[in-house]
Amino acid sequence: MSIKLTFPDNSVKEYDDGVTVEAVAKAISTSLAKKAVAGKFNGAFVGLQDSLTADGAIEIITKDSEDGLNVLRQTAAFVLAAAIKDLHPEVRLGEGQADEDGFFYDTDRDDGQLTIDQLPAIEAKMAAIVKEAPTIEKASLTKAEAKQLFANDPYKLELIDAIEGDTVEGFKLGDFFDFEEAVLLPSLKDLKHFKLLSVAGAYWQGKSSNPMLQRIYATAYYKEADLEADAKRREEAKERDHRVIGRDQDLFFVDPNVGAGLPYWMPNGATIRRVIERYIIDKELADGYEHVYTPVLMNLSAYKTSGHWEHYREDMFPPMDMGDGEMLELRPMNCPSHIQIYKHHIRSYRELPLRIAELGMMHRYEKSGALSGLQRVREMTLNDGHTFVALDQVQEEFKKILRLIMAVYEDFNISDYSFRLSYRDPKNTEKYFDDEEMWTRSQSMLKAAMDDLGLDYYEAEGEAAFYGPKLDIQTKTALGNDETMSTIQLDFMLPERFGLTYVGADGQEHRPVMIHRGIVGTMERFIAYLTEIYKGAFPTWLAPTQVVIVPVNLDAHMAYAKQLKEEMLKKGFRVELDSRNEKMNYKIRDSQTRKIPFTIVVGEEELNAATVSVRKFGQSKAEEMPANMFMDSVQAEINNFSRDGKHKRGEGSQLAD
Amino acid sequence: MSIKLTFPDNSVKEYDDGVTVEAVAKAISTSLAKKAVAGKFNGAFVGLQDSLTADGAIEIITKDSEDGLNVLRQTAAFVLAAAIKDLHPEVRLGEGQADEDGFFYDTDRDDGQLTIDQLPAIEAKMAAIVKEAPTIEKASLTKAEAKQLFANDPYKLELIDAIEGDTVEGFKLGDFFDFEEAVLLPSLKDLKHFKLLSVAGAYWQGKSSNPMLQRIYATAYYKEADLEADAKRREEAKERDHRVIGRDQDLFFVDPNVGAGLPYWMPNGATIRRVIERYIIDKELADGYEHVYTPVLMNLSAYKTSGHWEHYREDMFPPMDMGDGEMLELRPMNCPSHIQIYKHHIRSYRELPLRIAELGMMHRYEKSGALSGLQRVREMTLNDGHTFVALDQVQEEFKKILRLIMAVYEDFNISDYSFRLSYRDPKNTEKYFDDEEMWTRSQSMLKAAMDDLGLDYYEAEGEAAFYGPKLDIQTKTALGNDETMSTIQLDFMLPERFGLTYVGADGQEHRPVMIHRGIVGTMERFIAYLTEIYKGAFPTWLAPTQVVIVPVNLDAHMAYAKQLKEEMLKKGFRVELDSRNEKMNYKIRDSQTRKIPFTIVVGEEELNAATVSVRKFGQSKAEEMPANMFMDSVQAEINNFSRDGKHKRGEGSQLAD
Repeated sequence: MSIKLTFPDNSVKEYDDGVTVEAVAKAISTSLAKKAVAGKFNGAFVGLQDSLTADGAIEIITKDSEDGLNVLRQTAAFVLAAAIKDLHPEVRLGEGQADEDGFFYDTDRDDGQLTIDQLPAIEAKMAAIVKEAPTIEKASLTKAEAKQLFANDPYKLELIDAIEGDTVEGFKLGDFFDFEEAVLLPSLKDLKHFKLLSVAGAYWQGKSSNPMLQRIYATAYYKEADLEADAKRREEAKERDHRVIGRDQDLFFVDPNVGAGLPYWMPNGATIRRVIERYIIDKELADGYEHVYTPVLMNLSAYKTSGHWEHYREDMFPPMDMGDGEMLELRPMNCPSHIQIYKHHIRSYRELPLRIAELGMMHRYEKSGALSGLQRVREMTLNDGHTFVALDQVQEEFKKILRLIMAVYEDFNISDYSFRLSYRDPKNTEKYFDDEEMWTRSQSMLKAAMDDLGLDYYEAEGEAAFYGPKLDIQTKTALGNDETMSTIQLDFMLPERFGLTYVGADGQEHRPVMIHRGIVGTMERFIAYLTEIYKGAFPTWLAPTQVVIVPVNLDAHMAYAKQLKEEMLKKGFRVELDSRNEKMNYKIRDSQTRKIPFTIVVGEEELNAATVSVRKFGQSKAEEMPANMFMDSVQAEINNFSRDGKHKRGEGSQLAD
Repeated sequence: MSIKLTFPDNSVKEYDDGVTVEAVAKAISTSLAKKAVAGKFNGAFVGLQDSLTADGAIEIITKDSEDGLNVLRQTAAFVLAAAIKDLHPEVRLGEGQADEDGFFYDTDRDDGQLTIDQLPAIEAKMAAIVKEAPTIEKASLTKAEAKQLFANDPYKLELIDAIEGDTVEGFKLGDFFDFEEAVLLPSLKDLKHFKLLSVAGAYWQGKSSNPMLQRIYATAYYKEADLEADAKRREEAKERDHRVIGRDQDLFFVDPNVGAGLPYWMPNGATIRRVIERYIIDKELADGYEHVYTPVLMNLSAYKTSGHWEHYREDMFPPMDMGDGEMLELRPMNCPSHIQIYKHHIRSYRELPLRIAELGMMHRYEKSGALSGLQRVREMTLNDGHTFVALDQVQEEFKKILRLIMAVYEDFNISDYSFRLSYRDPKNTEKYFDDEEMWTRSQSMLKAAMDDLGLDYYEAEGEAAFYGPKLDIQTKTALGNDETMSTIQLDFMLPERFGLTYVGADGQEHRPVMIHRGIVGTMERFIAYLTEIYKGAFPTWLAPTQVVIVPVNLDAHMAYAKQLKEEMLKKGFRVELDSRNEKMNYKIRDSQTRKIPFTIVVGEEELNAATVSVRKFGQSKAEEMPANMFMDSVQAEINNFSRDGKHKRGEGSQLAD
């Protein structure tokens, strides 16, 4: 008997029934067999020693593929668990597996969880296990046997109960057994380059109502060079991490004891936020927006009308019963609030486009496990705006919003972004809000606007919202993740649901189109983003402290230093005079560590010549210049926002109109 | 038998047992008897015809006293009810009584409440009743009789049930009976000068869970001149009412259907608020405050620690159960938030005074019946600040805060204010936070500070808070009501409860004193106050629109008008060009009605001479001047804030230090 195997290149070969994956690889080439670590049969992982007994699609998994790396890390997680149980038999194991960054294993223990201090010993134990190089063998237990084995591991018992049938499949390594759906390396000789990284709390099975376990994070590679490169990347990520910079520069903190996901902005962070808030409001006012303040609470009925309560309830805070029949809800978005502003007057076509903007505070319920620094929070302030237009104004208004967005990007020196234009699915138009004319005309207007502006964009059919087409602008974070920074979304639905109208030139009532637009998103996420792309070296206009003055001698040069400080305060600079009783070099270093844009030193020479010795952050040499010239250059930097002469203008310069 | 009556001047006279109050008055003088309308016996109201049968303190109530006015108005409320029942027998009566402004009666009716259109007929009916001049007679009913009489008045039945004993005391006027605890005029001849004013919804017995009745507001005086003066005051009050101006100038609105007591700030109101917010933040930053942003939500446990949950719960919003063991509370004040900021670092004596400030949004539960415009709201943003000081810094810091407050008052041209310094009650020191040194030293420091500054103040023993002494600054609203605008309160308790410390020069831990201070209070109440004192004519720096440009001819002068507008926008002025197809005079009038600070007209002459014709709000004549000079004068007004050359500097100028 023979079986037919189909390879990824669609070639088909015949093999003896029961041939192992390893034999298949060898039959192709010795070099392939050497790199092979597993196979995939009809899409499912199979071990190298597994026998194939039917026709099907085969793929050989090699070390240099992503799947290959996955097999290594899955194996590493298995060995990690074995090492933990060997050193700490009292630990109760949760689950472990490979993830895109490495692998992890969840553990639990009375009398205090495993700590980062215990990782080196565990890592050494793993190395010792690998050195003994035992084979990992496939093994099957009955449920009863498995329960016996894991009698003291309640999490494993829970997993065993969830398995269908009576057999628990897994792997053995000496006395250690773990059940695994994955495929492991047949031999441990390839598991040499691994590193245990960190520990952090993680809810059992990701549910916040479950106990908090201790997750051990680690990574592994086939080559030492890859492990080293990874360590370097992590180091850099840590250096950029807004939570780390936020702590070092005293920008903000979150304390789950007073409120999970509710950031406290310390004076330094609050300064950055205030400067950005004033900037964006002024920018919008100049662009024809009317800024409003609307309440963070609203009668729940409005969110029933809007549909949020039906579709979005899980992300909303619990309603508050005010005891007089009123149910109040912390708003999860600002659209219904701006609709109230629109509805407060009878609107005429002469008023359109009507542009309502606000720094609107909102509350969204996120699982506590998902919260992270300023990036994922429960209370946030959105740079929000809603434009109400007649259908035939969509194209011009869309362009106007886009020009505003790109002008703001330029001011913040954001240049790495791309456009995604989302339409409805032309094959399933019935899935969308039912207004044929709105869809066809507006989609073509958005496309025409993008073309008019000469912008490159990606068209995504079927990615529109139920209520209208949209444009998303994706940026890359400093850590390489995609993030939607800005969005322009047409909405045909809310004007209908809230019965919005305007009186046209014909004296008749018409339905406006509502455009939701965000420029920099929430203050929280935007400042997290900026902190990471600037690596904490905030440009002068945003820096909480812009200038530090260091007198060479606290007696002789203090008066001059004070006079300079006063002059700069008058110009509105944020300036500090370092009058601590410390060495001058210590103060200069301290200012550099804090990434202050300008450190100026004033001594005898400066006093006599009315000059300052300027050390700009990131430049190694100090420069001597007249005090006035220095202040002018600081002012010039402030006026220049974050724009960077070294960079070309962003894609914004492509704008044809 | 005789009785002894003691008069207010402590003289004692003897009278026959059973003497009437009227007879007592006559025995003193005929003129007193003429003015007498009632008496007070041992502090309780008695009628003129009532007999006195025991020794006690007697007082004759005359028309020219407040009590006398009260008797008139109580009588008027009775007659109002009689008139309503005569004209509208289907009306169910609630309660009616005199209040400090006049009197009112609550009514209820199926098929629509009484409206303001029905008041003239009711007022005429009252006059007719008075003209017939029947006597009002005291009358007693049994509860059964009273229930029979009010069988169709469920509110009266409720009141009858609440009366102890079986007798219902009241008054009769022809067929009409109403029960009254008060005293009425024996004759209606004095009830001539009254006016029904308005109607408004009012919950039965002030409870928002009860039905909403219709309250009829009215007033009455003994003299026609007083009624006329009152009408004038009311007219002026209406003209100043921030709710009326708020609607006319489109500053804000509140819609109970989307949230009672939750104001929406329209673009005009939002502009005023934004300008004030930036002003006050900049002022505080320049004065050494560090501004922060802290969350509007906090774990309920913090308010348990602070004591707010125990003592202030009725004014707080209902807590939200987050489902993971966390109870979150919308904060009713910001102190615990700023304490978190303080506690985030170990503090050194070198950092004190540490000044934390924020425009902090808070939520307080007010009964819906108590809500009013921007004056009484449920969501508010407080110009809040907390200074943490060592005990020996109290005096200097107190002076510094006071100087800041008075500088701000000067900028807003607030000159009518007074100081009240509140100490603990020296006879009941055990009622206060227990720290003898804190109290004695700090009270004497506050007093010394006031004296140092050369300020007049009123000392109020026993008016301090439990947790420390304080200074309140009382202003008068445009309507003459007292309002606490600013406050400086020492707090010894919260530092103790939250375990706040700083490391002293001695290396030991010490307890700081916390100073709560507010300068302009909440944005809501402050802007309501400003609207009323400015009568809606906002000074240039605050005016939502500062300049309106009116071209004489839309064709010939439009280019010049546009050029002026552009120049002014560049200077940051808030300017409108009125290009409507309307007559010039109409546009000028419209701008004046809107109380725009500057209306400029540009025609042929202005175009040729590069001038403008300026009409300043409140001045009847236009003035011709070069365009540049005009812009300079607008800028000068903006820079001058609300300060008014006509007024002397406020009491601020008294400041000796």
